[in-house]
Amino acid sequence: MTNVIFSNDFDKAMAGLIIANGAAAAGYETTLFFTFWGLSLLRKDPEKPVNKNFMEKMFGMMLPKNIDGLKLSKMNMAGMGTAMMNKVMADKNVTSLKDLLKLARENGVKLVACSMSMDVMGIKESELIDGVEIGGVAMYIDELSNSSSGLFI
Amino acid sequence: MTNVIFSNDFDKAMAGLIIANGAAAAGYETTLFFTFWGLSLLRKDPEKPVNKNFMEKMFGMMLPKNIDGLKLSKMNMAGMGTAMMNKVMADKNVTSLKDLLKLARENGVKLVACSMSMDVMGIKESELIDGVEIGGVAMYIDELSNSSSGLFI
Amino acid sequence: MTNVIFSNDFDKAMAGLIIANGAAAAGYETTLFFTFWGLSLLRKDPEKPVNKNFMEKMFGMMLPKNIDGLKLSKMNMAGMGTAMMNKVMADKNVTSLKDLLKLARENGVKLVACSMSMDVMGIKESELIDGVEIGGVAMYIDELSNSSSGLFI
Repeated sequence: MTNVIFSNDFDKAMAGLIIANGAAAAGYETTLFFTFWGLSLLRKDPEKPVNKNFMEKMFGMMLPKNIDGLKLSKMNMAGMGTAMMNKVMADKNVTSLKDLLKLARENGVKLVACSMSMDVMGIKESELIDGVEIGGVAMYIDELSNSSSGLFI
Repeated sequence: MTNVIFSNDFDKAMAGLIIANGAAAAGYETTLFFTFWGLSLLRKDPEKPVNKNFMEKMFGMMLPKNIDGLKLSKMNMAGMGTAMMNKVMADKNVTSLKDLLKLARENGVKLVACSMSMDVMGIKESELIDGVEIGGVAMYIDELSNSSSGLFI
Repeated sequence: MTNVIFSNDFDKAMAGLIIANGAAAAGYETTLFFTFWGLSLLRKDPEKPVNKNFMEKMFGMMLPKNIDGLKLSKMNMAGMGTAMMNKVMADKNVTSLKDLLKLARENGVKLVACSMSMDVMGIKESELIDGVEIGGVAMYIDELSNSSSGLFI
């Protein structure tokens, strides 16, 4: 299974990671290809500050700093909806986004960051969490052609 | 064909149901797996009031009460756009959302409600329309692996 | 590969066209099926004005006039975000949306406009760019059933 994670909405990230972990648990080789807004899921604070031009700084400021910064696509209500969702998930013992991503890595899900999106948004390799590969559309098409299914999330 | 209906946007629900009915009409076994906001399409007023905690009541109030409450993802304009769309569809003899869902059931499309989403949003079985199965991600992956195609809508 | 282009967001159109061109470059027969908002990508100013009823004029006014009118799904900020994205793409030598669509046609990607969406939105054949076929859901299901993968974008 080779899925594109295009969105950085909390709810879509949740669905994407639960499906990937479900596929990996069922024994399928699974790849997640993070592109555009989806790169937000792979971001971390870099150990050393990185050089960015003005536009890259602008994008950097506007995107969530990391996976904990994601917001609901609907009913976000200035963060209240997202906080509510996090609370409900904790109450019902649903794994958090951050832990779902960690689990995906432990389950052998391959995480790929889209090189063109990184270039356009000015996201550097040192801003990505560990264990992420970098690839372009040719790599995505190649992975997809070896998969029995592929979603665009 | 096994498609995820994640969205409760009027326009995406429309596309999802038309594609499912098209696939069923062409003879394909078709499953729709309703998750997150998509659960709104399966809601009805329960015959008996159900017990809900505070958070569950909040979610219940914020989600559309049933498939007739769905709104356009764009140009909704305080409901005017959605009303306009409904009028145009009636004028052009395009089947309504509610009837498309009814047709899907009559065409043998399997409707599955995501158990984890029901739990998180506090939606009870008695709030779902008749003829809906309940299943988790394992069931989804299993159905998808037996399908020749799958969309995330 | 048979993908649905449902959205008219700048960023999703970008992803959809890059993936289609990537698939065509890798030798796959590729079809893009433009439905609902996605029809915006295929619009042009008609040579002769077309007769439209009131509702059709309303839709026509609210939709982007052509592929150059598409806007980012997030951070559009009254057009500023989209302009910023266009500038960054030009600076980094990323092909523009319009050229990606042209390239798709040159690469032999089949472009299909959804007949039912055209009818609902009142978009006439003379408002579509050259080289576009018109088809319904049966044609889509038929193309998809002959494809090894299909996305909903």
